Order: sequence, then structure tokens, then C-alpha cells
Amino acid sequence: MEEDNAAGPSKKALKKAEAKAKKEALKAQRAAERVTTQVANVELEDDPAKDNYGTVTNPTFSADAEEVELRDLDESYDGKKVVIRAWLQNSRTQSAKMGFVELRKGGNWTIQGLVLATITGTGAESQLPAEGTPIISRRMVKFITAINPESFIAVEAQVKRPIEPVKSCRISTLELHITKAFVLAAAPPVLGMTMAASNQPVANFSDEEPKAEEEVKKEPEAEGGIPAASMLTHLDNIAMHKRAPVQQAIADIRIEVKRLFRSYLEERRFKEFEPPCLIGAASEGGANVFRLAYFGQEAFLAQSPQFYKQFEIAGGRERVFSIGPVFRAENSNTPRHMTEFTGLDLEMEIKHSYFEVIQVLEGVLLHILRGLRERCADEIEVVRSVYPSEDFLLPEPGKEVRLTFAEGQKLLREEGPEEFRNVRDDEDMSTAQEKALGAVVRAKYNTDFYVLDKFPETARPFYAKVDDAGTTVGDNIRVTNAFDFFLRGQEVLSGGQRINDPKELEERIRAKGVDPNSEGIKEYLTTFRQVGVPPHGGGGIGLDRVVAWFLALPSVHLAAFYPRTPKRLLP
Amino acid sequence: MEEDNAAGPSKKALKKAEAKAKKEALKAQRAAERVTTQVANVELEDDPAKDNYGTVTNPTFSADAEEVELRDLDESYDGKKVVIRAWLQNSRTQSAKMGFVELRKGGNWTIQGLVLATITGTGAESQLPAEGTPIISRRMVKFITAINPESFIAVEAQVKRPIEPVKSCRISTLELHITKAFVLAAAPPVLGMTMAASNQPVANFSDEEPKAEEEVKKEPEAEGGIPAASMLTHLDNIAMHKRAPVQQAIADIRIEVKRLFRSYLEERRFKEFEPPCLIGAASEGGANVFRLAYFGQEAFLAQSPQFYKQFEIAGGRERVFSIGPVFRAENSNTPRHMTEFTGLDLEMEIKHSYFEVIQVLEGVLLHILRGLRERCADEIEVVRSVYPSEDFLLPEPGKEVRLTFAEGQKLLREEGPEEFRNVRDDEDMSTAQEKALGAVVRAKYNTDFYVLDKFPETARPFYAKVDDAGTTVGDNIRVTNAFDFFLRGQEVLSGGQRINDPKELEERIRAKGVDPNSEGIKEYLTTFRQVGVPPHGGGGIGLDRVVAWFLALPSVHLAAFYPRTPKRLLP
Repeated sequence: MEEDNAAGPSKKALKKAEAKAKKEALKAQRAAERVTTQVANVELEDDPAKDNYGTVTNPTFSADAEEVELRDLDESYDGKKVVIRAWLQNSRTQSAKMGFVELRKGGNWTIQGLVLATITGTGAESQLPAEGTPIISRRMVKFITAINPESFIAVEAQVKRPIEPVKSCRISTLELHITKAFVLAAAPPVLGMTMAASNQPVANFSDEEPKAEEEVKKEPEAEGGIPAASMLTHLDNIAMHKRAPVQQAIADIRIEVKRLFRSYLEERRFKEFEPPCLIGAASEGGANVFRLAYFGQEAFLAQSPQFYKQFEIAGGRERVFSIGPVFRAENSNTPRHMTEFTGLDLEMEIKHSYFEVIQVLEGVLLHILRGLRERCADEIEVVRSVYPSEDFLLPEPGKEVRLTFAEGQKLLREEGPEEFRNVRDDEDMSTAQEKALGAVVRAKYNTDFYVLDKFPETARPFYAKVDDAGTTVGDNIRVTNAFDFFLRGQEVLSGGQRINDPKELEERIRAKGVDPNSEGIKEYLTTFRQVGVPPHGGGGIGLDRVVAWFLALPSVHLAAFYPRTPKRLLP
Repeated sequence: MEEDNAAGPSKKALKKAEAKAKKEALKAQRAAERVTTQVANVELEDDPAKDNYGTVTNPTFSADAEEVELRDLDESYDGKKVVIRAWLQNSRTQSAKMGFVELRKGGNWTIQGLVLATITGTGAESQLPAEGTPIISRRMVKFITAINPESFIAVEAQVKRPIEPVKSCRISTLELHITKAFVLAAAPPVLGMTMAASNQPVANFSDEEPKAEEEVKKEPEAEGGIPAASMLTHLDNIAMHKRAPVQQAIADIRIEVKRLFRSYLEERRFKEFEPPCLIGAASEGGANVFRLAYFGQEAFLAQSPQFYKQFEIAGGRERVFSIGPVFRAENSNTPRHMTEFTGLDLEMEIKHSYFEVIQVLEGVLLHILRGLRERCADEIEVVRSVYPSEDFLLPEPGKEVRLTFAEGQKLLREEGPEEFRNVRDDEDMSTAQEKALGAVVRAKYNTDFYVLDKFPETARPFYAKVDDAGTTVGDNIRVTNAFDFFLRGQEVLSGGQRINDPKELEERIRAKGVDPNSEGIKEYLTTFRQVGVPPHGGGGIGLDRVVAWFLALPSVHLAAFYPRTPKRLLP
């Protein structure tokens, strides 16, 4: 499984990479300084092309030039005059008369532009072109090719078909013959992280600053000789991190997961609601909860919307979902953990059986996974070009794999690695066991997605409904109507039927050693006593994990817009 | 304007109402106790109908009965056998043989059910009905009409047209002839707040507990003699609060606002993102920010996604929006304030002018306001039946009102109340001034929605871009490309063009007396220095306020799912 590579390259490789990156940066800086000096020496005042280029905030363009977004540029624009706003990604000088640039916009849309001087000769012998031809000087060519990469520029150009396709650009069958070019927002001469580095796999996810200035003896091992950067460098250069096509693609996939989740549920009459983040009691046990001073009392950050989803059901909302932040004050510095992440939660009335809940949750997850393959094929390819992964195996319709917890443990004992020969049916699984079982299930059932149901009550919170049939496992432990869902052997969803009878609920609260009169619990229990609450169940999906494990990313941090870890709150 | 009633009834009226509510509850309790005793005395064992009613968790129904949701019940079901799961809202006994119930589901769908004994005679003389006729005993009739209101029940029934329409129910042209009835989740005999009380206007929004046991001399002033309850009582009975049709309607309208916001922006290529709640610096000034201990450092709760929206633009996302919680540690106990609320935010690249931003924001808000009128006409009516309001006046397309701040102040001086004769063009407006100007604009332009642009820089944060033309107002104060939007004279949106040049930004940060090297600010500024950031602007809409002011609710707390106030964090 890809998971074995989750820790990334070795520390040694990392240090080499970081050192190489610094060396590259220094080299780039020197080159940039040379160019900047040259450009500064040009006297613009006597340049006949001086109105066609420069650094200005509000440039003017020809009245007959159409403003177009790169992604909208197609063959129908051949021969037309356009204005394009984009990032200058690369440039090179062919000769004193001619230069090339690569422009990027809309995440991953790139096109080649070229600029060719129309003023012939140099100095006193120079001649303006014929009336009607754009005036382009050698100085203008020099200016354009000297623009710092990642500057935001606007060009006026004629769209033409290139002699042969420009393989290095996504828009390969068109190019821009630039006639005006203005820098709207200049990047500095040296970037803290280049685009080439940003679009490499992150070298290391540690939150520790690497020891500076270590001697490097060999070249780093990164492919193609492009240095990789650590996650710290990525976050310190947040704009460059986000501009990389791989991060643009991950962000777009993340958006699509939310959209697929929402649309599937709305079609089934689920209604969105917003649970609070600030809550008055550490309702789910008190461990790993953030606390804050709140006008003379104490407040807590919600670890899940659990109680509030249930209040919605008690409040007659029938079927609800929420998409929002949840918080865990867990001091875990691993690629699997964050202190703030996004929960996709749902809760619904049950008519006959909690299988109705499994059905909806399985349905929505498969809708998401299948939907991604259909709608995000391009984005998945972009991600894979940086983070290679095996195809995500989806079960065929009607062949979804649902195992009981006991069946899962049995499989693990019988077909899993040696070390798991003695796993028990009445004890929760470790992450290592989950991954091992995922591998067994994949080999046996040809799927990276499956459900584990009927968890023992020892592994579940007090609100989990115990199996009506009185089934027990192991040391006479009852099982619950509660389940987890797995992607590539890693949990992405926990759910189950909840207790809706206040007497049963109070009994389970006491059995779990919780005081039914403690703050938060009391109000929770009271709600069930105040009105009749219908049978219900639901589940919570970790959005970041769905994105990360579906794409087999080495860290969940790559799936988040702004990963929060115990050591990192900025930017 | 409706705002004058925002404070609700007087304290005296409130106390009366609360006392009356208690009296009513006591009366109901006594009545309920009588009924419960009677039912308990019934010996079920010898009842031939005993399988057709009772309190069970998993009842069985006839194989030919179709499970239907109340909202789906239409004329096509006439004569058919159905199973309905719903709340019992009301019941009454017509005779020993006959009873009526009112069932509610799906927020506001109600229907009348009736149950008629088919066993003739009583005691030893009783006779079973003919073969094929449902067996319904007088004890069953008694059981059904004695079910505590707000219990969740399941009934099997034949759908029939009533002799005349049942005016008290939304489904008035059908009724249910009940043949089986099971209580799935029983409400207690006495509700902490009845449905009748819950669907009244909230009597008082104060967070202070009313002084208990005050003598009441007269009847409360609430209409129809139904006692109103305070917001405290509503929140203490969260399920009953939510079950009221008025709250169901408000929740549905709130959902629609989000949906309209999202769909309008997605059609215009805006991409959703998720800003963090946990941030490493009190970036926007440090006032009114919640602080918490975070693994040996200090963390803060985001007051807005401002910086993060801009990082997205710097990161090449072009046009972004976010929907999520923001936090203000403001000790304001008013119907206008909450400590946690939902922000609808957007940010976009600017091509030519920040009017592009106003255009999108005006467009999305008008899309929301017009969309609500079209899609939520029923819900708006439900809300108005409890909280009457004047029609929200929308500008005709093409006649949107945009005033500069100076024009607004001039209007206020010339056509506003006496007290505002001397308002200055270089000082921010107070809430009272805003409301007064809203009234003037409504009278003059026939709209409850308008834009105030070009705020003086004294009234705006450091990132607001100053007007290029160098326009000044009052005491030589420059104006900014920043604006507010108003609904019924109350601000719901703040926005503007942001500074994208790092030098200009640093200058403004210093001018505002902020240290450009302070934590959070430094990282913010660094991002603009690291790469070229295109011109951009955006705005933030308060979702709770849009809902509350559009509906002219007396408090923004009614628009929230779980209002958070300085004194209230539960439930």
C-alpha cells in the first residue's frame, strides 16, 4: 500500500533538498539582480514603444481587444486581439529581438507568449515599422523577458496558431503574439519557493525546523533534479504553495467532495443546519478539548456536532446535515492529525432499522467517490503526476462490503499479518490493525471501500444504541448498532444508531461512568425527557481524510486549506 | 419601522406572561395526571384490539399499508391504507366511541386523524365487528386520545375525504381514519413549553432570569390569550422551540439564503474555501477576540476570514467565497449581537475597477432577496403570522440605490431627524444614524436595500484601499473604495477594495498605528511581498442579520440555530 511511503523521504534527503533549494535561490537571486540592473539602465523616455509596456496599475488597451480568461481561449480566437491577465510563470530571451514567456491562470491553464521587436536596427539606425504595425522595441523585449516570475501581468496580444504545438503548455495549439505588456503587481526577484519546487512532493511533514546550514555532499534525490521543499517552507510561502497546480487540483477536488455530499443529501430531503463551535460544556468526555475564558465562565470548542444533530432531530427537522469545523486539542504531530478539521455530518430519523442510516451513508460516500472519478478526472491526474497512487478500487453496485466488527477481527486473525493473530472481538482496533485489515479486504473483495458494523460497546460512546438482539462478543460484551467506514484501510466515518429513550440513555451514561448531572450531559438528557424523540442515527465524515486517502496523499495536511497542527497556527 | 418594537413587550407584561405560562402548565399537568391514571387502569390483556395500539419500539403494520410522509399525502391517496409517523399535536375525545387527533410532521404539515370504536356495546355485551373490519375498542380510543402531546407516534389509517374541509389543518381535504396507533417515543405529561406558546412571539430577549414567583394581577397581553414565553424558556426547551412552525420556517429561509448565495457565486466561477477558526494572532486589532491556550502558545478565534480570503487571491484562486463561523468576544447583550455567527464572505480579482465587486455583491444580495420572495413565499407567510412585518421593498432592476457616504450624511442632515442635523462626512455612522438614514432612503427611493460607498478612511481598517482620485471629505480626510450595504436601515455587509501593493499596505498599517512587525500582521504583509498579488476586493455578509432584518424579526437570535450570547452557551 502507498501508506508505507507516508513518512516521506529520509531526514538526510530532506536536508540535502533544503540546502539545494537555498543554493538554487541564491543563484536565481544573482541572476535576477543582473537583469534588474540592466533594465534599470534602459532609458525609457526615448523609446518609441514606451506606452506599450511598463509597471502601471491601470493600463489602457486597444478598444478592439477582448478581455479573455485563459481557460476560455479556444480556436475561435485565432487571429483575434485579446487582453489576458495572468501570472508570468517563465520567460527566456531568444535574441535581442525576440523573447518567450509562459503565462498561467485559473489554476493550471498555461499558454506561450512571444514578443518580437518591430523596430529594426539599433540606436540611430533604428526604424519604426509600417503604419498599423504594433511598435515593439528591443527594450520592450528585454523588459518583458526580465519580469520576475510570479508577477501578475496584463498583456495585449494577437492569438495565433504556433508552427508546432507548444508541448510545455496546456493550451498548446494557440500562442500569444504580445503587443503590450504591463506589470500590475511585481513579484520580488527571488521567490521563497519557486513554482517548480512548489509543484514537487512535499519533502517532509515534520513541524520541527530543520537544522540550518548542514553541509551537503551529494545532489538531492528528488526527481528531475528539482529540489523539494518541506511543509514548513510551503506554509511559509503560502501563496506559492497554493499556486502550484497540485494544490489547485486538491482544492478543486475538496470543493467537489462537499458539493457531492450536499447534493446527494438535499435530493433526499436532508436539511442543512449549523451547529455551534462555542459550547458550554466539554460534553464528550472532556479529553482533548480546547477551553477558553468566556465572560467569567468557561467555554469549549466543539469536538463534534453530535449533540446538536440530535437536538435537530428532537426539534422535528427529520433529516439534517452540517458541514463545518470541529476541534481536537490533541498534541499529535502526525500526518494523520490536525487540531481543526472539517466534518461532514448527518443525522436522520429511522423508520424500521439503522440499516437505513448505513444505506444513506454508504450511498453518499459512493456518490462522492464515483463522482470524483467522473467530474475530477483532470484534477486527479494532476495530483497523481506529483503524488503517484494506485487506482482507488470501488465496489461494483450491489457488491458493497459490509462486515461485522467480529468478522473483521476474524479475517485479521486468519488472513492478516502474524502480529494480529490474537486480536479480540471485544476490543477496539488500532490504526495498524485497520490498515492491515484494509489490505486483507482489498485482496479478498477487490475494494478500497468497506463498512465495519456492530462495534462492541466498549469501543463506543454512551449514546451508541446497543443491538436489540442482545448479541455479545468476546468476554460477554454487547455489540452496538454502530459502524465505521474505511477508505484504503483508514477510517473516514463513524456512525450508528443513537439511543432515543431517556431512561436507556441515562442508564448507559451511568454505565460509562459519566455523571448524568454534569454540565452538558444534563442538558442533553433533559432534551430527551422533555419531548418524544423519534429513533434516529447518523454519522460523521472527516472531509480532509476523504480527500487525502482517496488521493493517497502522504499527509492529511495537504488536503486542508490551512492545516492547523499543534505547532503551527500561521498563516 | 418595525424596529421600534425590537425590544419586545414590557418587563411587566413578560412577568405576567411567564406566570400565566406556569399556571397553564400546572393545569395541564393535573389534567394529564388524571388521564394517565385512567389509561393505566385499563387492563389491556382482555382487549380484542390490544395488538392495534400501545407503546412499542418496533410496531408491525399491514402488508398493504404504504409508508408515506405527511407532505406527500395528496388526493391520489384517497381510499388507500397508509402508515404515517408523526408528532401528535393535539387530541380530543368526542365520545367514548370516538376521538380526534391532530398529527404534525415535516415542519408544518398537519392532518386530522379520527378513531372510531368498531366493537359495539361495552363489557360483556360487546360485539366484535364483521370479518375484515378493523378491530377498534373504546379502550383503544381512550388510549389514543390520552397520548401526551408532542409524543412521536406511528399510525395505520385509511385516507378519506372529510365531510367538510378541516380548517385547522394544512392538509384540510383529507383525513386519517386510524386503525392502529403506537407510541414510539412518549413525551412527558407536562411540556416545559407548549406548542401554542412556542409558536407565539418571544416575549423577551433578555438573558437575565426573570424574578421568580411575582404576583400576577391581570391576564397577559399576548393575543388570543396564549401565553408567550421568554427566549430563556425557548432555549431551555430547545426541541419545542425548534418544532414551532415559525422556527421551522425561519430555519428553512436561512438554508435558502445560503443556497442562493452559493449558487449565484458558483455560476460566476467563485470557488468555495474554508478559512481557519483557530489563528495564531489577533490579526484585526486584538479587541473583542477570544483567546485560548494552545500547546504552550496562545491561539485566537477568527473574527473574520479577511486575511485568508486575501491569501486565496494571492494563491491564484481568482474568485473565492466562504460560509462559516466567525467570533466576536463582545459583551453586548442586545438583540443585534451574538458571539458566534455565520459569515458569507467573498473575495475576487479586480480587472478595471472595484465597482466590479459592488456589482457582484449587489447582484448576490438582490438574488437572495428576490429568490426568497419566490421560493419561500409560504415560509415568509408563516413567519409573518407570528412576527408581522411590512413588505420588504426591493429596488426595480436598474434602479438600485448607491450613495456615497457623504451623500448619505447630507441626506441625513437635510431630511433626517433634528438630532442628526450636524453629522459629519468624515466620521463613522452610529446605528441610530443608519436606521434614520434607512427611513429617509425608503421614503425617497422606495427601497429597503441600498449601498453606501466611499467611506472615509477614519471609519475603515488599514487594508481598505484609498480612492485613487484623492477625494477628501470633512477635515481633509481621504475616502476609501469601501462600502456598506443596508437592509431596512441596518448594515448587513461591509466590503471594499483591498490594498494589494506591499509598500502601500505597510504605509497604511503604520498610519493606523499598527506595528507591521507584530505577529499576524508580519505574515500578512510578507505574503504580499513574496509574490505579485493582483488587485482585488470583496465583502462579508452577516447571514444571521440578512435573515433577521429581511423578516423584520425582533432579534437576530431567532435567526440562529443555536444563538450564542455572553450569558448563554447551552444548549
